[in-house]
Amino acid sequence: MTEVKADHRPLVAAHRREKMRARLVEAALAVIAAKGIEGTVIEDVIAGAGVSRGTFYNHFTDIPELMRVVRDALIDESLVLSLAAVADVSDPAEACAKGLRIALSISASFPLLAQFSARIGLNMARRGNLVAVLLPPILLRGMQQGRFCTMPVHLAVDCLAGTVIVAQQYQAEGLALDMTELIAAALRMLAVDPAEANRLAALPVEEVHPPEGGLISRSVPRCPESGHASLSLQTK
Amino acid sequence: MTEVKADHRPLVAAHRREKMRARLVEAALAVIAAKGIEGTVIEDVIAGAGVSRGTFYNHFTDIPELMRVVRDALIDESLVLSLAAVADVSDPAEACAKGLRIALSISASFPLLAQFSARIGLNMARRGNLVAVLLPPILLRGMQQGRFCTMPVHLAVDCLAGTVIVAQQYQAEGLALDMTELIAAALRMLAVDPAEANRLAALPVEEVHPPEGGLISRSVPRCPESGHASLSLQTK
Repeated sequence: MTEVKADHRPLVAAHRREKMRARLVEAALAVIAAKGIEGTVIEDVIAGAGVSRGTFYNHFTDIPELMRVVRDALIDESLVLSLAAVADVSDPAEACAKGLRIALSISASFPLLAQFSARIGLNMARRGNLVAVLLPPILLRGMQQGRFCTMPVHLAVDCLAGTVIVAQQYQAEGLALDMTELIAAALRMLAVDPAEANRLAALPVEEVHPPEGGLISRSVPRCPESGHASLSLQTK
Repeated sequence: MTEVKADHRPLVAAHRREKMRARLVEAALAVIAAKGIEGTVIEDVIAGAGVSRGTFYNHFTDIPELMRVVRDALIDESLVLSLAAVADVSDPAEACAKGLRIALSISASFPLLAQFSARIGLNMARRGNLVAVLLPPILLRGMQQGRFCTMPVHLAVDCLAGTVIVAQQYQAEGLALDMTELIAAALRMLAVDPAEANRLAALPVEEVHPPEGGLISRSVPRCPESGHASLSLQTK
């Protein structure tokens, strides 16, 4: 009997490809943080990643595609942090209320996240990120328990995402936003009773800090003089 | 006594300026309809309007600014048509339900409107168009009559606009959309009771046809062979 040796080469190649992609995303993030979304050009990204132009085009069609991937990576990190923080909340309505508040607090502290949503934030729930994967279970549970009314789950996801985008629009433009009012509106949209929506929307949440090594933390450029994180909001 | 003669020259200059601006917007619309939003360049717009590059820059900073002006002009026409159609509806909740359905029917028939919202549709309620002017009176009336709950009116406007953008996103991508479900969700957001929201969302509306000479009608290119309006949706 001949022993069949597993061919690991395709796996190794896939892994290498994934690593290079992540390296380009990280390089892009550094450039975006320094030069803004509009100012990011391919030359800076490949210089930052230390790769050739050809390598870039092996992974991305153009800068807009890379931007979408960076945005999705930021959204995913924010979403996972927010949902992890409400993982032990058994009521789906309370989980939505607190999860929304945490997600909006994160984007309030990390302007690039809000800016991304404000500029290329549509399609948020449908492309390459975890929104359409991680939100439906909570929404479906809420519908089954009669906490939310029954509606097409993808529409509920999109309406919630739409609420987040509206909020991030305010944040990106530096406008005042009553987060409690917005969260209450989102809960009412899911058919939570108005008084109950107000109560849930006002519940306090624990502060959530994106991990130091994560993409969100690195989206804020360090200011060399003060040593503090800073980012001038470009609202135009 | 000397008769003071009114100096009409500033008024005449302003009128001329407005006419030139409108001419550039119309030329842009024709180019966009023929070449798509991405394919529109300044050379085609000035050729279409029969003006110099300098004249263009007297009125607009760049193509993106022109795009925002074209979008706002389309939104305004759609909004005015929708609200005119529900002008004799006394219940603000019913007016919202029917107005939303009419606006979404218009954008369903005129793909460029949906495409615009899908691509540069954020900020819809805050810049240079009539959304933030025409919606607040209806929403405030609904709040005063206890038909809607009290909430900051600009937030209610933005949440409604967000719903429209979600819907137009579906339309621009050619995805199926349950309009009744979406309208019901928007009404619930305003705190209309779920059963009542379903009833109102299902109400039929009269068909509204954008006027022949208007911008919306002209946003659809004529197909020379069939004589029918046609537009290939570019969903990427």
